[in-house]
Amino acid sequence: MSEISPLALPFPELPPIAGVELRVARAGYKDWGRCDLTLALLAEGTTVAGVTTKSRCPSPEVEWCRAALTLGHARALVVNAGNSNAFTGSRGREAVEAIAARVAQSLECQPSDVFVASTGVIGVPLPIDKAEAGIDAALVAPVADWLDATNAIGTTDTFPKAAMTQAIVGGRTVTLVGIIKGSGMIAPDMATMLGFIFTDAAVKPAVLQAMLERANAETFSCITVDGDTSTSDTVLAFATGQGDPLTSREGADADAFQIALTDLCRQLAHGVIRDGEGASKFIEIRVDGAESDESARIIGLSIANSPLVKTAIAGEDANWGRVVMAVGKAGQPADRDKLSISFGGVEVARDGSGVPGYDETPVAAHLKGSDVAIGVGLGLGDGQATIWTCDLTHGYISINADYRS
Amino acid sequence: MSEISPLALPFPELPPIAGVELRVARAGYKDWGRCDLTLALLAEGTTVAGVTTKSRCPSPEVEWCRAALTLGHARALVVNAGNSNAFTGSRGREAVEAIAARVAQSLECQPSDVFVASTGVIGVPLPIDKAEAGIDAALVAPVADWLDATNAIGTTDTFPKAAMTQAIVGGRTVTLVGIIKGSGMIAPDMATMLGFIFTDAAVKPAVLQAMLERANAETFSCITVDGDTSTSDTVLAFATGQGDPLTSREGADADAFQIALTDLCRQLAHGVIRDGEGASKFIEIRVDGAESDESARIIGLSIANSPLVKTAIAGEDANWGRVVMAVGKAGQPADRDKLSISFGGVEVARDGSGVPGYDETPVAAHLKGSDVAIGVGLGLGDGQATIWTCDLTHGYISINADYRS
Repeated sequence: MSEISPLALPFPELPPIAGVELRVARAGYKDWGRCDLTLALLAEGTTVAGVTTKSRCPSPEVEWCRAALTLGHARALVVNAGNSNAFTGSRGREAVEAIAARVAQSLECQPSDVFVASTGVIGVPLPIDKAEAGIDAALVAPVADWLDATNAIGTTDTFPKAAMTQAIVGGRTVTLVGIIKGSGMIAPDMATMLGFIFTDAAVKPAVLQAMLERANAETFSCITVDGDTSTSDTVLAFATGQGDPLTSREGADADAFQIALTDLCRQLAHGVIRDGEGASKFIEIRVDGAESDESARIIGLSIANSPLVKTAIAGEDANWGRVVMAVGKAGQPADRDKLSISFGGVEVARDGSGVPGYDETPVAAHLKGSDVAIGVGLGLGDGQATIWTCDLTHGYISINADYRS
Repeated sequence: MSEISPLALPFPELPPIAGVELRVARAGYKDWGRCDLTLALLAEGTTVAGVTTKSRCPSPEVEWCRAALTLGHARALVVNAGNSNAFTGSRGREAVEAIAARVAQSLECQPSDVFVASTGVIGVPLPIDKAEAGIDAALVAPVADWLDATNAIGTTDTFPKAAMTQAIVGGRTVTLVGIIKGSGMIAPDMATMLGFIFTDAAVKPAVLQAMLERANAETFSCITVDGDTSTSDTVLAFATGQGDPLTSREGADADAFQIALTDLCRQLAHGVIRDGEGASKFIEIRVDGAESDESARIIGLSIANSPLVKTAIAGEDANWGRVVMAVGKAGQPADRDKLSISFGGVEVARDGSGVPGYDETPVAAHLKGSDVAIGVGLGLGDGQATIWTCDLTHGYISINADYRS
């Protein structure tokens, strides 16, 4: 692992989730002497939902999960770290089938009940022998904890990222735990990394799917590190609960679960940004007054993906001219003479020009902190969005110009 | 000026253009003790065409030029360096009007015959007193040469960029000279910098406009340094010729002029990439087999703007997986299993997976050079495009994280 991100948070206390049993093993996908295969065994009756990359060149794991998600049931999850198995033709597909078959045989379930995700270098077929040996080792390994599993799914991550929320559903407390990996090749418009959510709630697959999509739209789809979209991005949510399931998105129980799920996803998404490659600042961009929410989101992402904005924040420079530039290039409705911009809540530009003699002291102090807030007002309508990103530093260049495939 | 780009080319020998008289002066927009105001006096009867930024937050200079371009005639060009005058509200507009009025009074022409462009920091109104004093000084200054003018329009440029082409039109040789500035905040979809083209050909305004747009589409709109689009991007072409003008885009004369104009624009566009902030590699991306030319262009730009591709090239790493990623995220029709990728003409991936045992020696040697060629075949149709960009290095971060507005 590289030096730990200066924005890292401590690993949270996480309770076990009934119906989830974790195992980790050393498949040895890379020569790194650590566990790199994670196996989650799931109780019978577990439902599943998922969102996957919008890349036109998805990995065979993504294609496998998409097909399996149509059935809505899961008994196991296998995560390989160090090799994404993407763009490996029919050999990559065979590796996924072999993994699912091996686990299904042991659990006496259908291969389609086994979900597979892989992360790491693109273009090298996942070695089937290593995967099978890793699965066999995992099946007899002692039970692992959340930290073990979170470490085992990581690649260039500099710290393990996980979160927990709870909700009261049907009169009882249900718990949601999520683990996530991701640091570079992070872009919105999809799941943007590998994330796995487990809950002891009982939720019908279609309801879980709708709720996950809604949470995704406000969280994972609103983060970006570098605007680059992985071929393997996958978020899966598993609900192991055995009682009466949530069968509707309406009502108090559904609302409580949706809030807890979205909150969990937001925490996980923030974790990815806090581990953004080379990040030294966590940046929140709030756009309002746009013609629509989608327009606000596109403008926010244009700002968040602008190398000039990201380097200005790295340099602790309140260069709002670069924010104007990024709004202007977004291609969305914008009226220069109604535009306002703030840093840390202090308005620095308004109505098409700089605010004369604004107080630079609080703005400079805000930019020296590790969390930076940029506000953009379009003055056109009610559309709004919040986007999260990190700055662009020498660390990003070092990590990605020196990394060898 | 920063250290000269390692990709710099020598300044070419450039002949004078009949009907064009250059002057430079020190307006003192910044405290830099160099000429920063350029005045080009143009013969009566000069026609003009132009393309400007697609930013939704354009500078008042851009708005001024757009209005003046509808008339098609020019007598002077003023270029201010060090202050873009963008996002400065009504005060910025007044500065442009004052400049045009001052020059028009001296030349006894209409203010709309005076074209104005400014480049530099965003958000600071251009000081009218400095502009007027600079114009007065330029009007009585000795005649300057192309190198003087090219240096005077530069800002963060590390070397002066210009080019010349010729064509035979109506049985006589006409000459085209172009000068350009630009290094960062360079994105396609528009003119992407300040560029000025002068020719002693006689061309009707509408024909010159159509030809410039065609040249622009294949050159300036196909380059990107950082995907960031300036609020001030402008390319103007002035034709000073007095004889029978080109009145059609058809025929041998028009073809000859179009070829020369496009060639000139390509040379200028390449100059901007060779001076891209922090650039150590000039990258040409050829996309073919796409569903349409526009689709090929979008895919090419997705690759060219990918921080992961750009850093891989900086690291001299034939990481074709990142190219797959950038194709996949472009949102354009692509079939993973028909995709092929080459570096320096050596195919490294084909039909959805890596080429087993391809010869890495010539690929590694190619990537060590200063000019890198990436080829992408989609295998879907006849659409093609060529895009030019540079790599992303520590130099870009240093320039942009340390630069203060």
